[in-house]
Amino acid sequence: MTGDVTADRRALRIDRLRLAESMDALGRIGGTARGGLHRVALTDDDRRGRDLLVRWMREAGLQVSVDQMGNIFGIRPGTEARPPVFMGSHADSVPSGGRYDGQLGVLCALETLRTLNDHRVATRHPVGMIVFTNEEGARFQPAMIASGVMAGKIPLEDAYNARDRDGIRLVDALERIGYLGSEPCVPRPMRAYLELHIEQGPILEEEGLPLGVVEGIVAIAWSRITLHGTQDHAGPTPMRVRHDALVAAAEIVGGVRGIARRIGGELVSTVGRLDVSPNIPNAIPGKVELSVDFRDPEEGHLDRALEMLDEVVRVAARREGVQAHVDHYWRVPRTPFDPEVVGIVEAAATALGCGHRRMLSGAGHDAQYMAAICPTGMIFVPSRGGRSHCEEEFTGLDDIEHGANALLLACARLAGAPTAPSP
Amino acid sequence: MTGDVTADRRALRIDRLRLAESMDALGRIGGTARGGLHRVALTDDDRRGRDLLVRWMREAGLQVSVDQMGNIFGIRPGTEARPPVFMGSHADSVPSGGRYDGQLGVLCALETLRTLNDHRVATRHPVGMIVFTNEEGARFQPAMIASGVMAGKIPLEDAYNARDRDGIRLVDALERIGYLGSEPCVPRPMRAYLELHIEQGPILEEEGLPLGVVEGIVAIAWSRITLHGTQDHAGPTPMRVRHDALVAAAEIVGGVRGIARRIGGELVSTVGRLDVSPNIPNAIPGKVELSVDFRDPEEGHLDRALEMLDEVVRVAARREGVQAHVDHYWRVPRTPFDPEVVGIVEAAATALGCGHRRMLSGAGHDAQYMAAICPTGMIFVPSRGGRSHCEEEFTGLDDIEHGANALLLACARLAGAPTAPSP
Repeated sequence: MTGDVTADRRALRIDRLRLAESMDALGRIGGTARGGLHRVALTDDDRRGRDLLVRWMREAGLQVSVDQMGNIFGIRPGTEARPPVFMGSHADSVPSGGRYDGQLGVLCALETLRTLNDHRVATRHPVGMIVFTNEEGARFQPAMIASGVMAGKIPLEDAYNARDRDGIRLVDALERIGYLGSEPCVPRPMRAYLELHIEQGPILEEEGLPLGVVEGIVAIAWSRITLHGTQDHAGPTPMRVRHDALVAAAEIVGGVRGIARRIGGELVSTVGRLDVSPNIPNAIPGKVELSVDFRDPEEGHLDRALEMLDEVVRVAARREGVQAHVDHYWRVPRTPFDPEVVGIVEAAATALGCGHRRMLSGAGHDAQYMAAICPTGMIFVPSRGGRSHCEEEFTGLDDIEHGANALLLACARLAGAPTAPSP
Repeated sequence: MTGDVTADRRALRIDRLRLAESMDALGRIGGTARGGLHRVALTDDDRRGRDLLVRWMREAGLQVSVDQMGNIFGIRPGTEARPPVFMGSHADSVPSGGRYDGQLGVLCALETLRTLNDHRVATRHPVGMIVFTNEEGARFQPAMIASGVMAGKIPLEDAYNARDRDGIRLVDALERIGYLGSEPCVPRPMRAYLELHIEQGPILEEEGLPLGVVEGIVAIAWSRITLHGTQDHAGPTPMRVRHDALVAAAEIVGGVRGIARRIGGELVSTVGRLDVSPNIPNAIPGKVELSVDFRDPEEGHLDRALEMLDEVVRVAARREGVQAHVDHYWRVPRTPFDPEVVGIVEAAATALGCGHRRMLSGAGHDAQYMAAICPTGMIFVPSRGGRSHCEEEFTGLDDIEHGANALLLACARLAGAPTAPSP
């Protein structure tokens, strides 16, 4: 016989309607006409979203604080002086992104805390939630910058000095929206960290499963390539004297695709950003900056991909006679999650009777850095068509309910609810 | 024996120092730290530049007016009721462009009028200058839009509705800076149009000649290509399901370069503008827009290039599984200049004793549309290193002086100065 939080185990379930209403209300802040979300980090819309979350967190009786990186903490006390169990995710989106990436995890964490309140569940460990700053890396690079600082992997100074395209520093943007907090952004004692997120890939949908038990995150490497050619007039400049930065960049884009083909397996390669200067029809491009994103479960594959990238850039730059600078500026190693936490998530899914599988995450998440601080795990819910980072992003409410309940049960278990189910 | 304007022919020469000072004063408006010029059409700096020119034109006794496209006219009366001889060029620059492209021709026209005043030269035809709006096409496409309207090649309505990247209409931008004039922008009787401009290519410098007698302008075709792929997350999206708009665009950039290689001869091909959406490191590009610019003295070569472009786009789009739309939205045919005007420019260069050659222009100029209105010609001065549309653009003052004097003599001849030299 398994323990039970209340007289009837089925009673410890999240409130599906309340969760849906919260998703709707938060999703309207920065919501797009096509049903997506455009709420880039540290903008006015991000502030409005944060303000609403803080209000809800206070209404749920949480003790709210903000750290030096603008991460928002909300804590529900435990019955003993023990390290808290945290749940969390991020509230920023990519430009023209979707309503599920990030904010779904934040709202499922909030819904878990609300449900613990409803059921008057006392836990030995405090239970809390974290809303992370600038997870996407769309405005300030690198991505996951705030959990990176918390884990001691990115110096606070470097994060503060990260600049957006308009030259605005992250620290100034934080201050402007009123979320430059005073609590140190450093590792603190934590019993565990749990993050629910959409899969952002096609596997769960393809296999007809509502839930993914995430065992870890693939290794990620980001590079920045700058090409300096000779800016000139597109008309009277003969082909023989041209040094066109975009022609070299185009060869690199093709080469980056080719690296994935040559290495094969699970390696993915993407040039997501490419900026041309002066970017007008009748000038030969004098300068191009582009980003390269490689991911693979095997560190060795990433090493090989980066070496091949160096060679691709060398060849393209030589052929066109342009100057190239390559900066391999960010790398996150493959991150295995804590076996105990993974087991507890899996047991929660089993107890709920919902189909699930173990899987790796191909996307980076704040959980990747949190794993350096405390035992960490993640729960995935399916993405329709595997789509994410776009307005078409969608996850059905039934799947969300399964995921949120798994988060609730795993959290209660980790926090030591006196009568917590040991599913 | 040749006639002479004043007792001493050598006296009818421009004032080199005054011209240099005007170049310096106008070049400071929108001047960049690296010695270039950033004065994009219908910006506040463009307005300040126009205001200074209008002041100088009034101080030179010209009758100033502005037409519906913001073109500025300044006219010095003649002794008879005849159609005026016009000189002119444009005052807008490309972003991070140079101080010679456009404004040099405007200031040499002004200097010619000032010199006619100094020498009290009476001309049978009135002599005027025109400052054209948005020649570059950097902000509003197509380029040469205002002379295109004047020549009846572009409907006024279309020009007014051209939008910049922020969605601002040209007509609203004109009104905002106070240069939405009331004079009809239509062909008016003109004896001739003369434009002095930098060559923007390497030929005069390579051949050590200070002056180019321009016989005509090559044919130009501009296309816009829009690619719609599937925007998605750069991590969990396997390579096998990707439809990356930038991968297809890169193949097109390479293909556009290849078209110039395959056709050879004097064809030049350029992708100068490329915009990626959403343009962040961790999203697969869902949309790319790019520009293609082809130029060649032979219309047939352009026809072939455009056919090959359609095929390049078809193949690239099919390979990546993206939707492509090609819009061949602008074409200007090869424009031969008027033989009489070309001969008069050549004779002026000979009379000045400065080395020169006949040549075609590889760049488009307002003169290309003006040739449909009246007998037209152009004078080129050398570009150091052939560089243009960049901050490094430079022409030495000696060369400028030769060019300006040729403009002065040719203008006086066309305007029928009573004692004009027939050089």
